[in-house]
Amino acid sequence: MNKKNQMDKKISTAVIRRLPRYFRYLRELIRNDIMRISSRELSEKMNITASQIRQDLNNFGGFGQQGYGYNVKSLYSEISHILGVDSGITCIIVGMGNIGKALVNNPLFEKRGIKITGLFDSDPDVIGTKYNELVVSDVQTIEDFCTENNVDIAVIAIPKAYANETVEKLCSVGVKGFWNFSNAEINVTNGKKIFVENVHLGDSLMALCYDICCEKQEAN
Amino acid sequence: MNKKNQMDKKISTAVIRRLPRYFRYLRELIRNDIMRISSRELSEKMNITASQIRQDLNNFGGFGQQGYGYNVKSLYSEISHILGVDSGITCIIVGMGNIGKALVNNPLFEKRGIKITGLFDSDPDVIGTKYNELVVSDVQTIEDFCTENNVDIAVIAIPKAYANETVEKLCSVGVKGFWNFSNAEINVTNGKKIFVENVHLGDSLMALCYDICCEKQEAN
Repeated sequence: MNKKNQMDKKISTAVIRRLPRYFRYLRELIRNDIMRISSRELSEKMNITASQIRQDLNNFGGFGQQGYGYNVKSLYSEISHILGVDSGITCIIVGMGNIGKALVNNPLFEKRGIKITGLFDSDPDVIGTKYNELVVSDVQTIEDFCTENNVDIAVIAIPKAYANETVEKLCSVGVKGFWNFSNAEINVTNGKKIFVENVHLGDSLMALCYDICCEKQEAN
Repeated sequence: MNKKNQMDKKISTAVIRRLPRYFRYLRELIRNDIMRISSRELSEKMNITASQIRQDLNNFGGFGQQGYGYNVKSLYSEISHILGVDSGITCIIVGMGNIGKALVNNPLFEKRGIKITGLFDSDPDVIGTKYNELVVSDVQTIEDFCTENNVDIAVIAIPKAYANETVEKLCSVGVKGFWNFSNAEINVTNGKKIFVENVHLGDSLMALCYDICCEKQEAN
C-alpha cells in the first residue's frame, strides 16, 4: 500500500504519534537480529496492550499473521515509509545557541534521513563558525537561501521574541514545517498552511516536578 | 487549598499535563501587566475551548468569578504551587555532551526554581570543566554525591547503553525522578517507585515529517 492510499484512509493523529515509538522498537529488534515478533511480545516490550498494537498496525494493512506474528523488517520499512524516513526531507537550523548546537550534532536527523542544509544566526561572532562542514550564515540571508534551495523544515531555536517574524518570513519563501523550540506560540497571519511541532522542554520537566512533590508530601 | 487536598482529589494526568501551558500563559500575562482574564479570552489565546479551561481550572477550586474572570496572579501562584515551582527541587545532570550542555545553560531550571547541584561525566577531558560555577565530576562519584546531598531529579543525558545501569544506581541512593533524554526505556528492576519523564526529540520530528510528506504528496 503506498502512502497516498494510507492518506485517503486518514490515519488518526493519535496513531501517527505512536508510530515513531514502533519505529524505534522495530529498529532495536532489527539490530538484535530479531526478524519476527508477535503482538504479545511487542506488547510486553512496549507496555501497550496487544490489542492496541493490532489496532494501530491494522491501520495500514494487516501485516501480522495469526500464530506467526509480524515480519519485523517489512513492518519497519512500512512505518519508515509512512513517516517519511529517507524521503529527502531538508532542514535548516535557525539559531546556533545551545539548542541549535545540541541539535546540529545530534544523530537524530541522519537516522531519519533528514538533511541539514543550512545553519543561521544573527551574532557576528557565531556567523562563519563551522559545524559538520556547514558554515553558519547570517540570518539576514535566510530568505535568499530558502528561495534558492528547497527547505522543508526550519528548526526555530531563537529567542521567543523573534520567533513569529522569522516564521512569517520563512513561510513567505515556501517553508512549511517548523520544529519550534522557542516557546513562542506560532501565529502566522498570512493564511499559508504550515505545520508546527512545538517542543516545550519545560512542560515535561514540570510534570516530573509535580510527581516528585506529590511523593514528598505523601512521605511527610 | 493546599497541595495535599488537591492530591486527595486526584487531579488527572491529562489536566496535570496541561497545567504547564497555563503556567506559561499566565506568566506572559503577568509580564504584560494583565491582572484579570476571562475564560473566553484565555481560550482565544490558548486555542482551547473556554469550557475545557473552566473544567481544568475547577479541578483545584473555582477561581473564576462570573462576569469578572480569573485573577491572573492568584491563578498563576496556585498553578505554580501545584506544579512544585520554587519548592526546593534539586537536580543533577548526568552526561555533559551536547544535550547536557544545552540544558545546563538553559534558564528553564531557574525559571521553575529548580537548583542544579551537580554535573557528571565519564570523559576525563570533560571532568573538571566548569559550567555556571559548577565543576563536572567523575560519574564514578555520583552515588557518594547523592548519598551526601538530597537529589530529587537526575537528567539522564548519556548514551542509551548506559542509561539503565545509571538509573539503577541512582535509585539505590534515593533519586526518584528521571528526566530521560537517552532514548532508552527505563526498566528498573529493584521495585523502587520512580518517576520517569521521557523526552524523545526524534518522535516529535517524525510527526512533523509525516505532515510534510503528506503535504508534498497532495501537491503532486
